[in-house]
Amino acid sequence: MKLLKICIIGSSGHVNYVLDDIKERPDIEICGVAPGPEEEGVKGLFEKLKSLGHPVEYFDNYIEMLDIIKPEIAVVACYNGNHGKVTMDAVKRDIHIFVEKPIATSLGDLIEIEDAVNHKGIHLAAMFGIRYTNWFYTAQKLVREGAIGNVRLLNAQKSYKLGQRGVNFQDSDLYGGTIPWVGSHAIDWVYWFAGKKFKSVYAVQSSLYNNNHKSLETSALCHFTLEDEIIASVSIDYYRPSAAKTHDDDRIRVVGTKGVIEVRGKKVHLINEDNDGSSEVELLTTEGIFTDFLRVVEEKGQPIVTKEASFYVTEACLNARLSAETGKIIYF
Amino acid sequence: MKLLKICIIGSSGHVNYVLDDIKERPDIEICGVAPGPEEEGVKGLFEKLKSLGHPVEYFDNYIEMLDIIKPEIAVVACYNGNHGKVTMDAVKRDIHIFVEKPIATSLGDLIEIEDAVNHKGIHLAAMFGIRYTNWFYTAQKLVREGAIGNVRLLNAQKSYKLGQRGVNFQDSDLYGGTIPWVGSHAIDWVYWFAGKKFKSVYAVQSSLYNNNHKSLETSALCHFTLEDEIIASVSIDYYRPSAAKTHDDDRIRVVGTKGVIEVRGKKVHLINEDNDGSSEVELLTTEGIFTDFLRVVEEKGQPIVTKEASFYVTEACLNARLSAETGKIIYF
Repeated sequence: MKLLKICIIGSSGHVNYVLDDIKERPDIEICGVAPGPEEEGVKGLFEKLKSLGHPVEYFDNYIEMLDIIKPEIAVVACYNGNHGKVTMDAVKRDIHIFVEKPIATSLGDLIEIEDAVNHKGIHLAAMFGIRYTNWFYTAQKLVREGAIGNVRLLNAQKSYKLGQRGVNFQDSDLYGGTIPWVGSHAIDWVYWFAGKKFKSVYAVQSSLYNNNHKSLETSALCHFTLEDEIIASVSIDYYRPSAAKTHDDDRIRVVGTKGVIEVRGKKVHLINEDNDGSSEVELLTTEGIFTDFLRVVEEKGQPIVTKEASFYVTEACLNARLSAETGKIIYF
Repeated sequence: MKLLKICIIGSSGHVNYVLDDIKERPDIEICGVAPGPEEEGVKGLFEKLKSLGHPVEYFDNYIEMLDIIKPEIAVVACYNGNHGKVTMDAVKRDIHIFVEKPIATSLGDLIEIEDAVNHKGIHLAAMFGIRYTNWFYTAQKLVREGAIGNVRLLNAQKSYKLGQRGVNFQDSDLYGGTIPWVGSHAIDWVYWFAGKKFKSVYAVQSSLYNNNHKSLETSALCHFTLEDEIIASVSIDYYRPSAAKTHDDDRIRVVGTKGVIEVRGKKVHLINEDNDGSSEVELLTTEGIFTDFLRVVEEKGQPIVTKEASFYVTEACLNARLSAETGKIIYF
């Protein structure tokens, strides 16, 4: 049994994708943890990893960590604005990358990373973990199996509670924007459900009424056109009321030539010639995103979130942000 | 008691707005019915009006009818592409107009009619009847009363069953387009709920997979920006499956600084500091749209669908269609 070593850079919440999926994998060890370039706190994560029995060392400098530990996998989960630089530092060292989205906050960095990753032949996946929820997974599988015919129109929604967020959400360079951060999931769903390439995007965003979060955009709307005249809206907001029962209100509605399917409230609703929409669709179960990532690293199969999709959806997010910043339609 | 005379031109389904609301009004008589310029069949409507006891005469020519009957009110419900011409013929005769939307299918005709209506001091309302459903009426009232704070983002939806439609849906000049026909309701809701003016619109539409309905657009998506950086999507499709329990699936989701309200499935859902969304909002009841129209004609009060909104929303529809036809962002 080959031992796989992991290093973690940063400590965003989605590091749990990794911890959840390696519980039953004694052959995988987290050997190092370090902050990203902003020296954000990762001590809490370090203590947690020690308590879980990992042979983990703490490093002040992630580059030193990568050079000393020489891990097979780097988990990049620092501030958004640093994902690109940190990812590139790991790519240069031939390390597979499991990275919080967005992979990069500039198109130049993104292209440089994609070229290098493909040249090196390593794996990279962005943390589009919502694909692995039973409801999104089931709905997308039904669409791919033809339950609604040809996809024509998609309406995706991300709605989050704002609360009081840290400095990394208030500095536009560190944050990278609400479209790449919150919206990326919904843009990913559009690409995944439609199974077609983007042709253009038009987007508008607003930072008004953001409860003193400086430049943080609290509402945004993206309008994508895909191949075959498929059209998609992506609605994004930080206005989910604190009284709501869940933090997020993730939805997609996919309209096809033979039916309409919706994910809403962690349920799947389907109307087609066999279903009038009155009964809930039974949900399939999935593996976790990091298990899927490991499958590729261990050369055992294809993942749900491919390297190609990770880069392409990030490009779509950055094009949407560019549209919102310039007021122009951006063509892919 | 002053007797009010009505003439009807054309026989689209929404003529029922009139018939429903004058049942208890013996002082209102439908005195004439005629087809529009396309000489479409109105004999069925004529027989129905006779059976209801109206002193109705059938005319082959609507202009002759207006000149002979001299009604106070003309109901214009012919093919969309003829609304503008027929409305203008009635306006010239100082007749109040209750007109199927869109009021006109060209901006030039629309402006000409608006100028004339305002100059004459007559009333005109477009048949934006969905405002008067208990669910939309209740939700809009809650928004205006501040239940969700300041409106920031709106997602409106119209979804219809296609079925097999007549020649007036397949000839683009007679039909006028899916955005002005189906979408106009949702564009109207956006304006009504936001209570702000439009700044720009970007729209895309497709006629693919339209079941041999020639140029009929079966999907469309409009992206409006309003004053105060308010953003709105309007999603339109003809793909509601025939198995669905209702013909239409009308929705709006309105996101505000203090809450989110939704109309879906003829119910209103509200989440704000007092509501976690688990209980249904009790619905208010409303009068009908034609009763409201009569209120203005009889100088007894203000309507829900104003003359101003009738023209302005039609302009917004035609701008959205222009965007979809040209691929450009249209500024108001």
